[in-house]
Amino acid sequence: MLKNNIYLSEIDLIYKYLIKLNFKKKETFNFQNDGAFLNKKKDKDIVVTNDTIVESIDFFKNDDPESIAHKIITYNLSDLSSMGAFPYSYTLSLSLPKGINIKWIKRFIKKLFYLQKKYKIFLLGGDVSQSNQIHISANFFGYVKKDIIIQRKQAKINDSIWITGNIGDSYIGLLIKKKKLRVNNKFKKYFINKYLYPNPCMIGSKIIGYSKCGIDISDGFLSDLSKLLNKSLGADLLYSKIPFSKNTNNLINNKLIDPFSLLNGGDDYELIFTSPKINDDKILNIAKKNNYKITKLGSIIDSEGIFIDGKKITSFKQSYEYLF
Amino acid sequence: MLKNNIYLSEIDLIYKYLIKLNFKKKETFNFQNDGAFLNKKKDKDIVVTNDTIVESIDFFKNDDPESIAHKIITYNLSDLSSMGAFPYSYTLSLSLPKGINIKWIKRFIKKLFYLQKKYKIFLLGGDVSQSNQIHISANFFGYVKKDIIIQRKQAKINDSIWITGNIGDSYIGLLIKKKKLRVNNKFKKYFINKYLYPNPCMIGSKIIGYSKCGIDISDGFLSDLSKLLNKSLGADLLYSKIPFSKNTNNLINNKLIDPFSLLNGGDDYELIFTSPKINDDKILNIAKKNNYKITKLGSIIDSEGIFIDGKKITSFKQSYEYLF
Repeated sequence: MLKNNIYLSEIDLIYKYLIKLNFKKKETFNFQNDGAFLNKKKDKDIVVTNDTIVESIDFFKNDDPESIAHKIITYNLSDLSSMGAFPYSYTLSLSLPKGINIKWIKRFIKKLFYLQKKYKIFLLGGDVSQSNQIHISANFFGYVKKDIIIQRKQAKINDSIWITGNIGDSYIGLLIKKKKLRVNNKFKKYFINKYLYPNPCMIGSKIIGYSKCGIDISDGFLSDLSKLLNKSLGADLLYSKIPFSKNTNNLINNKLIDPFSLLNGGDDYELIFTSPKINDDKILNIAKKNNYKITKLGSIIDSEGIFIDGKKITSFKQSYEYLF
Repeated sequence: MLKNNIYLSEIDLIYKYLIKLNFKKKETFNFQNDGAFLNKKKDKDIVVTNDTIVESIDFFKNDDPESIAHKIITYNLSDLSSMGAFPYSYTLSLSLPKGINIKWIKRFIKKLFYLQKKYKIFLLGGDVSQSNQIHISANFFGYVKKDIIIQRKQAKINDSIWITGNIGDSYIGLLIKKKKLRVNNKFKKYFINKYLYPNPCMIGSKIIGYSKCGIDISDGFLSDLSKLLNKSLGADLLYSKIPFSKNTNNLINNKLIDPFSLLNGGDDYELIFTSPKINDDKILNIAKKNNYKITKLGSIIDSEGIFIDGKKITSFKQSYEYLF
């Protein structure tokens, strides 16, 4: 009703720019309808995720539009992967301040276009509005084999605990951006890039059937791992197995960063999942075949809590980012 | 990652308050997972809508939380209805400023709960974050009989043009709130209530099979009607048929409001749809049986444009609120 005009008119924003993102799929009605529809697939469930990013909270006001586009896609893809789903499509609610100009829009859309091609997704529709801050919300839809969605709280005693990729890089990038950590220029560039462009680990749809329990690391390794554990179960990990990048190990060795802080950092968008030990070789093969770094951290045990090298971790960050 | 603490902690907001809204449905995983799933129904398509409301744009900062809850539900339900779908569930992205207190949250949630019961929907999941303004986005899901979704641009020559309810009440309420119109207290209360609590017309799922073309009135009667018309087709209407409430007619008769302005007002959340003339009696019966006011405004003709009493309307508001 009162909605009108960011810098571009809404009509231009939708029919000159966003229109490119629907890939002419029939589900979108070419953005001419009040809604879209979801294509059902036989023997597949449709899963839905929702992630919202807000200026000054999830990104800095002057971050490149490419990074902001990357984050809204990454955060949601990572959620789909953690449920074992492969991506299908998404809706986008885009709220922008008046001051946003055409160049910003073009760069933002171009990055979305690139990521859509990369991950084989298209834009179903959405909403455009005006706000004080950049505020972007997306619902992502994915398919998963019927009735075997990967969930939290499904870890079983003796399951192996797996983690993909490395942790800590993105959080170190954030500390550098916030000037809470000073490193040389080479490191600075590496870590800030990891903060601006975290990569979702899309192994989820490959391990379905072998894992029933997983989560993506958004809040922090320890916090997210704890969400996999039902009461009375715990995780027994080896510190030496926790995967850090070569650059992160360099900072740790030079005492520039406390490695424990990285376990609480968040924004890694790697997966933690559990799987019966009998599947260990299968899991390693899947990761190898699909070029994902993977590490076995330890096992699920029948003592409550998270234990690293036998020592119980008594406190960690309790922040949460759920659907809900 | 940086997300934390509006006034309540996120955990409290989710697990003390929002949790009540999932109605313990299995699709929600009790808000314990990274996403939710959508229950498929045989011979039904799943449709999705997205509407976002932002403080100072779609509502006033100090509007009651009940009204804000009502609007996010109404706007989306109206979209579902306009496609012929019946409502199923929704996701909610809730961004709130730090200053929001528990009382506000409780009132907001209570209203959502009431509306969920009324419209038989439940909350699938969503996201909670912090922002400068109140900013609420929702994706709604509905079911519609396979392959017969009601769409725009499907009007055919000689189709009857129907409208539900009345138009203008909500817009008059907005003018009064903005102090652009002064009326006596009785009228003031009536119209502001219509602005704060517009009712979606849920006839859409009842007329499916009889209508292939419809839209809900969010931007304004003329603007939205024009979106039903393919090029070379037009709408021939009688002014006397345009439905105003008794109170609106009173203001018109007293020259307090220009009736033409009401055709551009918006936020009516009534439906305009077209249907072959042969269905006229059927449509009237459906409306009567379900207690919806309905009016036949005129017919689709083979001259481009909107004609009222034979006179072509040459200008009307061109604002748009699509999915996109």
